[in-house]
Amino acid sequence: MEALIEMLGNATFENYVGAAEGYTEMAYQMSAHVLTLGYAVMLAALLYFVLTIKTVAPKYRTSSVLSVVVMVSAFLLLFVQSNNWTGSMIYDAESARYMLGDGNDLFNNGYRYLNWLIDVPMLLFQILFVVTLTKSDFSSIRNQFWFSGTGMIVTGYIGQYYEVTSPTLFFVWGFISTLFFVHILILMKRVISEGKEGAPPKAQKYLGYIWTLFFFSWMLYPGAYLMPYLFSLSAEPAMSEMAVVARHITYTVADVSSKVIYGIFLTLAAQEMSKAEGYDYESMENAL
Amino acid sequence: MEALIEMLGNATFENYVGAAEGYTEMAYQMSAHVLTLGYAVMLAALLYFVLTIKTVAPKYRTSSVLSVVVMVSAFLLLFVQSNNWTGSMIYDAESARYMLGDGNDLFNNGYRYLNWLIDVPMLLFQILFVVTLTKSDFSSIRNQFWFSGTGMIVTGYIGQYYEVTSPTLFFVWGFISTLFFVHILILMKRVISEGKEGAPPKAQKYLGYIWTLFFFSWMLYPGAYLMPYLFSLSAEPAMSEMAVVARHITYTVADVSSKVIYGIFLTLAAQEMSKAEGYDYESMENAL
Repeated sequence: MEALIEMLGNATFENYVGAAEGYTEMAYQMSAHVLTLGYAVMLAALLYFVLTIKTVAPKYRTSSVLSVVVMVSAFLLLFVQSNNWTGSMIYDAESARYMLGDGNDLFNNGYRYLNWLIDVPMLLFQILFVVTLTKSDFSSIRNQFWFSGTGMIVTGYIGQYYEVTSPTLFFVWGFISTLFFVHILILMKRVISEGKEGAPPKAQKYLGYIWTLFFFSWMLYPGAYLMPYLFSLSAEPAMSEMAVVARHITYTVADVSSKVIYGIFLTLAAQEMSKAEGYDYESMENAL
Repeated sequence: MEALIEMLGNATFENYVGAAEGYTEMAYQMSAHVLTLGYAVMLAALLYFVLTIKTVAPKYRTSSVLSVVVMVSAFLLLFVQSNNWTGSMIYDAESARYMLGDGNDLFNNGYRYLNWLIDVPMLLFQILFVVTLTKSDFSSIRNQFWFSGTGMIVTGYIGQYYEVTSPTLFFVWGFISTLFFVHILILMKRVISEGKEGAPPKAQKYLGYIWTLFFFSWMLYPGAYLMPYLFSLSAEPAMSEMAVVARHITYTVADVSSKVIYGIFLTLAAQEMSKAEGYDYESMENAL
């Protein structure tokens, strides 16, 4: 194992498994399918956000625009991430398993991380254009979102390079990243609580959903980061393989929830607020 | 045969045939052409749904938006599925047949399945934004559609991994998937019957078409799932080959019918309903 790690340099868990025991057809393909689903959802949702932008009053449209920005960047990065997977592993007929291809690119989740460098600030800013803050200052919250969002991603990005080669560094960087994450959760809780005050009842309901969705979907990311350790790094091949598939699925579920479903709920909340303020898209005579 | 299956791991029928006898040029290319036709139709229809969105009153436009979402995701997934086919098989000059390429990616219909994970709920929700339910509850029907739609796809997805290696598992998962399908059919029948009540006569006519179309086009999917057994797995090469081509054709016909033609009929029904409610796109002076 030591020799293998040395050979791989900053091995990610995916390459480590691919070089050691490889993947069954089912594990390799489930990963490929899930990664493909991920970017397809982003492009599909991009059109949703473009086509529904006029269902909300002009003051709320920045939220849709930010969703569009997130969809474009997530689509492209997840597309590259997906090709990174299929381009790393090749089918070895002798062992009937997919192995890390000789001379192929290695697999690394870093594409996702740099995607988040765009998406995380956008997703956090987005809600500020829908809710009305009663006590907190818009600029202050925005800057704190930006600071902790960026801090969380950069430290997590560095940490993920050490998931196999240096557990200590992996956990230290992961811990720092988590501190930023906790700060974001506290801020978001405050934003949603203030936003609910004075919002029409149906919008309040959607804001409630958004908090639950935000909490659970963002919690999936640290889970995916820790996946090699949750399934135990030194376990038997079938477990390692399962950890890799579980990570792909977890990231995809988290991305779809925290970007697409979150954006849809914000659109629905904004539609209710628009109606309450006299902007009713459905009753417009010549809605264009 | 046992050795071949072992070599292929969770062999799909397509790989099994490709590794054993391979495909004639005609069988390989008909498959390639049909798969290409599939994604081309989706991109073409995407434009149709975008460009006709204003021919219906605002309250019906969600149906068009959902058609667009379905077209984008289906286009991308079918594009990858098509490349999966051409990337798996290579022409072997000696036998003058297309064979599973050594070291190439294997073929798997799983891309389709995960595409349906997006499309099936969207297609089922879509009709709820066109018809008016007289007795049933919108949220209840929507949740049941979502539950059974997802259940049907996930169980079918797992099942298709065993089509060659474990007929028992293949049929058990397929059977569970069919139970969800029957539930969906019952729900859809109810939705369409209620939707017809009070709808203008021409819209009623289109809703009638939609039920017939829905019933037959969705029935094609279990047919495609069972294709290796419909043509008998142990039959001679020419039959196996025909089963593979027939499956590609069946899936494509089903996809075009259940997504594109279904969406067009819903648009036509919504146009009639819009007219009956005083929204007449054709008579608008400066329709934009």
